[in-house]
Amino acid sequence: MTVAQTQQRNEEAIATAVAILKQRFGERLSQSASVREQHAHTTTWLANQPADAVVFAQTTDDVADVVRICAEHKVPVIAFGAGSSLEGHLNAPAGGVSIDLSQMNAILATHPEDLDCVVEAGVTRKQLNSHLRDTGLFFPIDPGADASLGGMAATRASGTNAVRYGTMKDNVINVTAVMPDGNVIKTAQRAKKTAAGYDLTRLLVGSEGTLGIITELTLRLQGIPEAISAAVCGFPSVKAACDTVIATIQYGIPVARIELLDAMQIKACNAYSKFSYDEVPTLFLEFHGSPASVAEQAESFGEIAAEFGGGSFDWTSREEERNRLWQARHDAYWAVLALRPGATAFATDVCVPISRLADCVTETQADIEELGLVAPLVGHAGDGNFHLSVLLDMNDPAEVSAAEKLSARLAERAIAMDGTCTGEHGIGQGKIGYLESELGSALDVMRAVKRAIDPDNIMNPGKIVRL
Amino acid sequence: MTVAQTQQRNEEAIATAVAILKQRFGERLSQSASVREQHAHTTTWLANQPADAVVFAQTTDDVADVVRICAEHKVPVIAFGAGSSLEGHLNAPAGGVSIDLSQMNAILATHPEDLDCVVEAGVTRKQLNSHLRDTGLFFPIDPGADASLGGMAATRASGTNAVRYGTMKDNVINVTAVMPDGNVIKTAQRAKKTAAGYDLTRLLVGSEGTLGIITELTLRLQGIPEAISAAVCGFPSVKAACDTVIATIQYGIPVARIELLDAMQIKACNAYSKFSYDEVPTLFLEFHGSPASVAEQAESFGEIAAEFGGGSFDWTSREEERNRLWQARHDAYWAVLALRPGATAFATDVCVPISRLADCVTETQADIEELGLVAPLVGHAGDGNFHLSVLLDMNDPAEVSAAEKLSARLAERAIAMDGTCTGEHGIGQGKIGYLESELGSALDVMRAVKRAIDPDNIMNPGKIVRL
Repeated sequence: MTVAQTQQRNEEAIATAVAILKQRFGERLSQSASVREQHAHTTTWLANQPADAVVFAQTTDDVADVVRICAEHKVPVIAFGAGSSLEGHLNAPAGGVSIDLSQMNAILATHPEDLDCVVEAGVTRKQLNSHLRDTGLFFPIDPGADASLGGMAATRASGTNAVRYGTMKDNVINVTAVMPDGNVIKTAQRAKKTAAGYDLTRLLVGSEGTLGIITELTLRLQGIPEAISAAVCGFPSVKAACDTVIATIQYGIPVARIELLDAMQIKACNAYSKFSYDEVPTLFLEFHGSPASVAEQAESFGEIAAEFGGGSFDWTSREEERNRLWQARHDAYWAVLALRPGATAFATDVCVPISRLADCVTETQADIEELGLVAPLVGHAGDGNFHLSVLLDMNDPAEVSAAEKLSARLAERAIAMDGTCTGEHGIGQGKIGYLESELGSALDVMRAVKRAIDPDNIMNPGKIVRL
Repeated sequence: MTVAQTQQRNEEAIATAVAILKQRFGERLSQSASVREQHAHTTTWLANQPADAVVFAQTTDDVADVVRICAEHKVPVIAFGAGSSLEGHLNAPAGGVSIDLSQMNAILATHPEDLDCVVEAGVTRKQLNSHLRDTGLFFPIDPGADASLGGMAATRASGTNAVRYGTMKDNVINVTAVMPDGNVIKTAQRAKKTAAGYDLTRLLVGSEGTLGIITELTLRLQGIPEAISAAVCGFPSVKAACDTVIATIQYGIPVARIELLDAMQIKACNAYSKFSYDEVPTLFLEFHGSPASVAEQAESFGEIAAEFGGGSFDWTSREEERNRLWQARHDAYWAVLALRPGATAFATDVCVPISRLADCVTETQADIEELGLVAPLVGHAGDGNFHLSVLLDMNDPAEVSAAEKLSARLAERAIAMDGTCTGEHGIGQGKIGYLESELGSALDVMRAVKRAIDPDNIMNPGKIVRL
């Protein structure tokens, strides 16, 4: 599982740029090994490739200064938010400078009347939602980690609410970004919709820091629903659970969350989060709306679930219990790691048209069994998106090879089903090979865009496309 | 109101390319003046600049052949769908070849289980919805005209339903496009979400044929709501109507449509569509949902409207009456033209944060009065987007100059309010100047993208950005 270096280190240029940056930023530049390693940390199986220095930026101008200095010396720059990406996005395969945006954590404006807010890139999703609580509004996108909103935009993140509220692509109104020449652009104004030229907002959302560094964002907000209900429902098989999800979506029930956990994942969550659910394939659900609408949705869902052999519901509308449930869901990855202390886990991320979900899951579980792996499954089933957390002893070549086989087969299967190798984690280093087989000649256009905007390939090189 | 030519005609190259295309396409290529003029027709005040030939394409390969031949001779190509664009998108300021996609009107697949369908670019929105009727699904985006879906994607169109269902940006899953070198790409697979590389789908949506020609699209579909109710409600002032809209959105009522028509527009609609509404500022509304939810929404809206002095409702859930209402709304532009036979109308299209809507409308109406113009107003008020149809005698220089002044002031006002000069019509030729003042240095990035993808500037030159 090695990743080819796409660029050579240029020692002299790096040394020069770091020296100039040291003068400019003083104590706010660190070259300590532990800081550098921490900034290449990704929740992943990929090897750590630290940058040569980390600059702690406090303003968009700071970021622009770093980029300008690095651009002059053709030294790579890698943006860092919260360090929770999953595909080696933060690695510096050719060295360079990591720009830590976590101190850029001001909420610059909240416009309740327009249902939007303006934040610096380092604000995390939990920080924003705490801040918003008194306004009656919330920001719905929730990847497992308490990620930074800039990082979430850069990786086009989503999470459990996407089935109802969309992904970062749907919830970013504009971004301010430092481009590879150090220029600062704003991609759009604050109006709710626009037809004003190329959609640079959506070009930067999901570009993983390879085209520009997002320093500010305007985000759409949602009203906190009047009523929220959560439910847990077990099923006799993964197929029965998937079929229930498909029917729920087809029936048009506007579920806010509909998450699948297989029996092994429930076992892990029971142990880690002190639950006592039956260790069977299970759906975690949430309904948002008026009290009447929530009751109506729940009733309709109950009828569908019963048809597919779903068990009795475990219901709650108490906030504390709901929070505990969703925290457990967000901790699924850590729960899996705890199944086998010392093991590494790597997360897969395919997404298929929902009509193919049951097939994709069932065939994949046969693979897992055949390959003798432990790989619990969680999924944003309403979107056709699911993850395996494949447990690995990285020192056991046979196990690593089996995991590679599983991952490759899964990506190929999803692509053959008209799906994608990544629903929400992004390409980074880890999925570069799969992207090629997924999108073919469209990659020529991606490369042309990358070369045009970043001709010296200084922006997070070695991610998304090989040049 | 002249538009600068951004490219010189190359007579020799055009003659050569047209001769080769004539051999390839025979009767499917037309050089007749009337056909060429019709293909530069835009529902607009801009002068007609016809292409040198029109090719009627029947397949993606046809389109690729035209583009390849034109690329070899560096001759412009302009895609044509239904001819309903508003900003001179179809004009050929440097000549070239118009590619008519209207014969590419096959619905290639419908996947009710995945809530999506695959269509050729020439399928119109009404054709698709007729085709879908028996599936219980519909495609919500509805610009006034019965536009082609390829053209709607190319201009990032929206319409009256956008407040609930979003714009083309939100409802296109992938596109197949012929790029300027004649290569055919598909921007994404059919999964509901993806984090696989740069969002080429959204880069092509709204690119107005300047980066590639969309030949096929996969579209998201919606379930036809169980219950639909429409309503008409008059107000004592435009401000009262706007304030009602703002409160409705803030309150989180999921209106499917909330359209503003000012008194002059109601007068026009009464005459053209044989209505007899009071000639006061009026909201046209529609609610979608379960019967209970629709009733709940209507009741909440009624309370808000009453607070702002709204009159009694004119309600209907009968399909025929609803259709008549929305057809009248979609005919607003034609109704305005009928106010002054022989006049030209040009449509403005600003969009502002909704909190600024009442101010923007009120200040603009003062402008109209000051300038002595007739310019009825209709608006997708829930999105902060409104249009004036400015009636003009193009032979009266004073009137043309007043209209230019109105348009410029309006764009500046919207931009100063953190809004955009175009919510849904696009830039085309007509709004190139405003785009510069709206997005400043972001245009450098647009130009870099355009030059990288279309280095010879053959794709719909003279639109969106000046190179």
